[in-house]
Amino acid sequence: MISPVAWRTPPRTYGAWETVASNITEELVRRGWDVTLFATKDSITNATLQAVVERGYEEDSQVDAKVCEYLHLSEVFEHAGEFDLIHSHYDFMSLAYSRLMKTPVVITIHGFSSPKVLPVYRKYNGHVHYVSISNADRMPDLDYAATVYNGIDTSSYTFNAEPGEHLVFLGRIHPDKGTHLACETARRAGRRLIIAGIIQDRGYFEEKVKPYIDDVNIQFIGAVGIEGKNKLFKQAYAVLHLNELPERFGLVLVEANAAGVPVIAMDQGSCREVIKDSETGFLVNNVDEAIKALDRIQNIDRNNCRARVEKYFSIKSMADGYEEVYNQILNKPVTA
Amino acid sequence: MISPVAWRTPPRTYGAWETVASNITEELVRRGWDVTLFATKDSITNATLQAVVERGYEEDSQVDAKVCEYLHLSEVFEHAGEFDLIHSHYDFMSLAYSRLMKTPVVITIHGFSSPKVLPVYRKYNGHVHYVSISNADRMPDLDYAATVYNGIDTSSYTFNAEPGEHLVFLGRIHPDKGTHLACETARRAGRRLIIAGIIQDRGYFEEKVKPYIDDVNIQFIGAVGIEGKNKLFKQAYAVLHLNELPERFGLVLVEANAAGVPVIAMDQGSCREVIKDSETGFLVNNVDEAIKALDRIQNIDRNNCRARVEKYFSIKSMADGYEEVYNQILNKPVTA
Repeated sequence: MISPVAWRTPPRTYGAWETVASNITEELVRRGWDVTLFATKDSITNATLQAVVERGYEEDSQVDAKVCEYLHLSEVFEHAGEFDLIHSHYDFMSLAYSRLMKTPVVITIHGFSSPKVLPVYRKYNGHVHYVSISNADRMPDLDYAATVYNGIDTSSYTFNAEPGEHLVFLGRIHPDKGTHLACETARRAGRRLIIAGIIQDRGYFEEKVKPYIDDVNIQFIGAVGIEGKNKLFKQAYAVLHLNELPERFGLVLVEANAAGVPVIAMDQGSCREVIKDSETGFLVNNVDEAIKALDRIQNIDRNNCRARVEKYFSIKSMADGYEEVYNQILNKPVTA
Repeated sequence: MISPVAWRTPPRTYGAWETVASNITEELVRRGWDVTLFATKDSITNATLQAVVERGYEEDSQVDAKVCEYLHLSEVFEHAGEFDLIHSHYDFMSLAYSRLMKTPVVITIHGFSSPKVLPVYRKYNGHVHYVSISNADRMPDLDYAATVYNGIDTSSYTFNAEPGEHLVFLGRIHPDKGTHLACETARRAGRRLIIAGIIQDRGYFEEKVKPYIDDVNIQFIGAVGIEGKNKLFKQAYAVLHLNELPERFGLVLVEANAAGVPVIAMDQGSCREVIKDSETGFLVNNVDEAIKALDRIQNIDRNNCRARVEKYFSIKSMADGYEEVYNQILNKPVTA
């Protein structure tokens, strides 16, 4: 398992790819797989840790990120012969080594940082086994072994059978995430909105979000950790996720559903894969539709929200998905 | 032969590493070696050109430098089995692939961009054959196959048997290069100085160099090409190169000598390898010594300057040096 070396695996705070790599690794070990995790030396795992980079290059000003990357990846591929299969979370850079040895390589494509990286994925198409994190995030001209949704640790999210009073926006404060559309929806629907998240785009916040904030009807509480999220979800009537850019996956939607909270999400990107319309939330196209959806929130069975996460977006379901991919490659009977 | 893909090989203007790669490649082809040059697709060579990157990433805003690098290097190493030997000019990144195939790899270390890259050179020490471009630029804890000095095309430089009247500073205007020390030497010696080169450090130029410039005794003429250099060398009594940082190699010293011009250089880094004290110039430690050396310039035989370049710093001598390295690795009798 190749984790990135930007952060420790699992990361102390931020580090989405390292989190996923850690979740899969630990669950596979629990299921009896013999896993070697390639990550930073300070990583924590029940797998065998093989490491040459002391600590995440984002946490260590003494090192060069590119040097860490080359030392880390060459270490993996120099030992490739010792493994039946390599599963990479290290983006296009890990593809470049894949034809220099015989071990099959699976890569989870956590996202295309830019169309400029596509030539590398095109070159190794059909050779490396590509896994997408949603069907929406697939490139039409690439071949995929599977879509495996990211899974969360559902035990971290407290289920709330009863709805709260307020609307909640949770996520980065950025135009892509449509924070201002959540504000507009709340204002016009006459409901309280609590906004939580890091301000990623300060200009956007000042110009488009702050004018709505009155600390009575619309409140901003900054970034929250897992405890803060659980507290927010307890108060939540619904989560508003009116993103203006297609989501690759949409972790917040899954977290809200895990807590039993229905989500009103813009019907873009992967949202319709994560949210089942009228069952775990509503898919809308604009603020008008979002306001109408609010009237139907009481029709959602909150048990369905939680059950859908357990089934499709848990660490268990994610590990099931990867086991199926591995077994196909290793020609083992599919057990999932 | 792995050239970088920052620029075309040979480069249109700037691109020192691509220039060296091109010079070696063309001379080896002339001598009958079967050479495949890995470079940009628009490169010009008499070798077999193998390329996947359209044009230099510094000349193409449509591409990502890191993507080009990975596509370029993986192409080389995926074809490694077709070659008896790989000679890289691509810095530490090319080392990372060297244990994944059997073809021996020679790398010309054009310089350590930072101490942070040393861990990669240490990892592959003894496995990849390291070539330094001067003895001064070696790291004490690395093993080297040879020092091979960079070679220039001596036919581009017109030899001047007779000295000119002026002092010349040629190079980047930067504190490392000691432009202000050249000014101070000229002022105190009562000689005219012509300064040519790009201003790389504007603050330094304004504060430390410009106050000397009076357009009579000390003149600044900006950057010059090969014609401008030849014109300057014709006017030159001596070149002043009072660098404050050790030189890795010192191309300007070689160019001046090729034109028959003695060089007064600071005795730092590779200068004492390039300049033979009292024969092709003088090695000094400060401005006082530089001023005294000026009185002895007439003792230098300008034919010696040219002859030393032909012998040690020409394309021919460079190719001889690399042939010796290749033959040692390939266990062929040494012919040089």
